[in-house]
Amino acid sequence: MDTVVNVELGERRYPIHIGAGLLADGPLFRRLVPAAQVVVLTNDVVAPLYLETVAGHFADRRCETLVLPDGEAHKSLATFGEVMGFMLEKRLERGAVLVALGGGVIGDLGGFAAACYQRGIDFLQVPTTLLAQVDSSVGGKTAVNHPLGKNMIGAFHQPVAVVADTATLATLPPREFIAGLAEVIKYGLIRDLPFFAWLEANLDQVLAREPAALAYIIRRSCENKAEVVAADERETGERATLNLGHTFGHAIETARGYGDWLHGEAVGAGMCMAARLSARLGWLDAAALARAEALIARAGLPTTPPADIEAARFRELMSLDKKNVGGRIRLVLLRGLGQAVVTRDYDDAALDALLRGAA
Amino acid sequence: MDTVVNVELGERRYPIHIGAGLLADGPLFRRLVPAAQVVVLTNDVVAPLYLETVAGHFADRRCETLVLPDGEAHKSLATFGEVMGFMLEKRLERGAVLVALGGGVIGDLGGFAAACYQRGIDFLQVPTTLLAQVDSSVGGKTAVNHPLGKNMIGAFHQPVAVVADTATLATLPPREFIAGLAEVIKYGLIRDLPFFAWLEANLDQVLAREPAALAYIIRRSCENKAEVVAADERETGERATLNLGHTFGHAIETARGYGDWLHGEAVGAGMCMAARLSARLGWLDAAALARAEALIARAGLPTTPPADIEAARFRELMSLDKKNVGGRIRLVLLRGLGQAVVTRDYDDAALDALLRGAA
Repeated sequence: MDTVVNVELGERRYPIHIGAGLLADGPLFRRLVPAAQVVVLTNDVVAPLYLETVAGHFADRRCETLVLPDGEAHKSLATFGEVMGFMLEKRLERGAVLVALGGGVIGDLGGFAAACYQRGIDFLQVPTTLLAQVDSSVGGKTAVNHPLGKNMIGAFHQPVAVVADTATLATLPPREFIAGLAEVIKYGLIRDLPFFAWLEANLDQVLAREPAALAYIIRRSCENKAEVVAADERETGERATLNLGHTFGHAIETARGYGDWLHGEAVGAGMCMAARLSARLGWLDAAALARAEALIARAGLPTTPPADIEAARFRELMSLDKKNVGGRIRLVLLRGLGQAVVTRDYDDAALDALLRGAA
Repeated sequence: MDTVVNVELGERRYPIHIGAGLLADGPLFRRLVPAAQVVVLTNDVVAPLYLETVAGHFADRRCETLVLPDGEAHKSLATFGEVMGFMLEKRLERGAVLVALGGGVIGDLGGFAAACYQRGIDFLQVPTTLLAQVDSSVGGKTAVNHPLGKNMIGAFHQPVAVVADTATLATLPPREFIAGLAEVIKYGLIRDLPFFAWLEANLDQVLAREPAALAYIIRRSCENKAEVVAADERETGERATLNLGHTFGHAIETARGYGDWLHGEAVGAGMCMAARLSARLGWLDAAALARAEALIARAGLPTTPPADIEAARFRELMSLDKKNVGGRIRLVLLRGLGQAVVTRDYDDAALDALLRGAA
């Protein structure tokens, strides 16, 4: 059941191990993390489920564990400082390896902590949510949030490996599972029409969390992400297409305060907004727009933003996005299903109309 | 008067411009920083002297300035957070360039801010102290301090260029100028015996801050550092020799609280301790030890640590150093003048005796 997808980044090449029950595979963990000192970072929801198992693989060395409170509110510079203080108190050396066991918050925060501790130590991503398994654990983007914007403080720091145990998805709350599907659908929309069609045909099995369907969507998502990241690690080109729906989505998340809307929910609504803007611009035909909206709705994701964000406020929040150049908002839009473009070359009035209609 | 030393790091190759009056060279600054958005970071001691001149070079674009209080106490995660907040409030985009105008604190903090803002933007080092011109501005090490250790939170992030105006050294307080000489002498001790001999012969001209002597020590120091960094950017080997005196020195700084002893003063005493330990181990003969101690003393630097640090406390602080592996303190020692080695293979009793003797 152990599938391996490689992220081809030259000397920083690394494997993504995907399979049911991998968390219990001690030899795999010890092979991926040969260090004498290990620190496992997790949160208080994941810890009761998996911490003993994972930390137990390192009983033969020094293994420290740090359990943070759950939630996006802790993906902050303050918590980052706490992690640094913990590692220094425990006198972890530069050869220590950080194991990030949890969802996107733990992965992003843990990765950033590994990137900065003594100017950089190795880390292992062990994602336990669908979102983290199909998106955030792969590609080396690490960050914490700032009250003025999501992921604004961070680093590119690739893990030594990713271990995605599909069995962890069985216990995921429905809302979180569905939020993760937004990123899965995204790969179909931006670059993989056959996968989009597969999702249309097999969404019921996915929603029923049939193991084979889960393994397939995770593998296919990781393959897509690995290809994009290998071609454009630092996001100077194609990688930006992975942000479909994210500029709209981040604005929603910031407007609502982190944690009210889940990231995937905001991305779901954001992808619909991007698709509708693409349609307004005449880039996406009505049938394609309908298919995109229908799949996102069937997954159980929101397709419209909260009604109470004024158009001007929406635009202001979007203009804080990292992808902007020269004051003009850069957007990921669709030229067809499976065909994303990154552009600043669109009719601004169409964006205005969309935001006014949406507000 | 514009000498250029290149740091050869492949696609991240960059020039160090050295000369008297370079701060007034608008065309140079505009050529090195073609960005549409610039943020100049400096402190309240440097700002009255040079901020108007430097910021004035960018009057044709958006140029924000942030003036921090002077001092090592501000090389902290809290101040780092303030810099991030400032840049976000000003809506600086990923294409913005940060100009770090000041000494080692501004350079290290500014470099780390540039490394992390939106996962990394370009930055220009404009060092205005001797220490920063001969050491900290070159090589891409950026960091802030943690109460539990110096430079423990940071990143490797190379500048796009360094501009070292030797005229800024004329106004430097004597204590700070002398502290900078510790790093200059270091290059002689670790790898450049002819430079060490030149310093013995010309120290009076250096202490009198004769422009030709200043230009020479800065160029020679930068050449040495550039060669070491080009050979070993990430400090997996030779680069560690640049830390001669620093493991002892960091312990002194941490014990005294940042800012009581200047970094260079602590390094001066630390280099003497390393030389004495080398002599105890029989690696350095008495004449060589005497030459090392004499030059450091003539420069006006301390040659012994503060008397009130107990041996056990000294060892504890040294064991927090980033260079440690497997609990054993790695040290930079001398096998002769101009010949440093990085080793964990020394008689621990000799270190004990040194620390007891020193306390």
